[in-house]
Amino acid sequence: MIGRLNHVAIAVPDLDAAADQYRNALGAKVGAPQDEPDHGVTVIFIELPNTKIELLYPLGENSPIQGFLDKNPAGGIHHICYEVDDILAARDHLTETGARVLGTGEPKIGAHGKPVLFLHPKDFNGCLVELEQV
Amino acid sequence: MIGRLNHVAIAVPDLDAAADQYRNALGAKVGAPQDEPDHGVTVIFIELPNTKIELLYPLGENSPIQGFLDKNPAGGIHHICYEVDDILAARDHLTETGARVLGTGEPKIGAHGKPVLFLHPKDFNGCLVELEQV
Repeated sequence: MIGRLNHVAIAVPDLDAAADQYRNALGAKVGAPQDEPDHGVTVIFIELPNTKIELLYPLGENSPIQGFLDKNPAGGIHHICYEVDDILAARDHLTETGARVLGTGEPKIGAHGKPVLFLHPKDFNGCLVELEQV
Repeated sequence: MIGRLNHVAIAVPDLDAAADQYRNALGAKVGAPQDEPDHGVTVIFIELPNTKIELLYPLGENSPIQGFLDKNPAGGIHHICYEVDDILAARDHLTETGARVLGTGEPKIGAHGKPVLFLHPKDFNGCLVELEQV
């Protein structure tokens, strides 16, 4: 069912410093910051040859990652995103196995303009898992 | 400098349950458990089309992931591994930028039989970063 690893998202306390570090210390290809007001984050994508790293920084009030950064002031890996062909079929199969979908259970349009869902981290070894229909 | 994302490692409290979940709930291609006594872990690789997920479970006394599971009983993402062409050149460049290499600073042979180093998570947005020479 799951396909490619679309991205690993890392919440960072200083977006410019993290971008500089990936660009200069790690020598990676670093994109420009993109504000995603609908998602309460500013994101920078690091393009690796086979997948992406998504740096996340809070944007506006009630950012969904502010609480994570409050608990993890140095930052940390926030979620991993797997691609699926059919997000509704994936959701239905997962809920039949007992996994919980966060929120209403209906897909939202994610930062890439595609339908996404998040699965409860307690059901997935402490990992917040995003599914994105591609 | 960094190349492909080689793997995302997830420490899990129940290796069989995690393997079943990736196989059945997420429909992924799940390998057989491999004991790595030199590294104090039993690993299972999940093969995705573009990268791998490495499930980690403690093996023996003094497993390096036991403390992580004590702090995170549900499990969690333990590290991410980037590939590099020349691990000594990568190490020297990183230490020049102020990043700290864990341990002696000399590469060890990792679970894939290739030289690896780990970078201090406090220097990388709270993420434990492994570099593997490929």
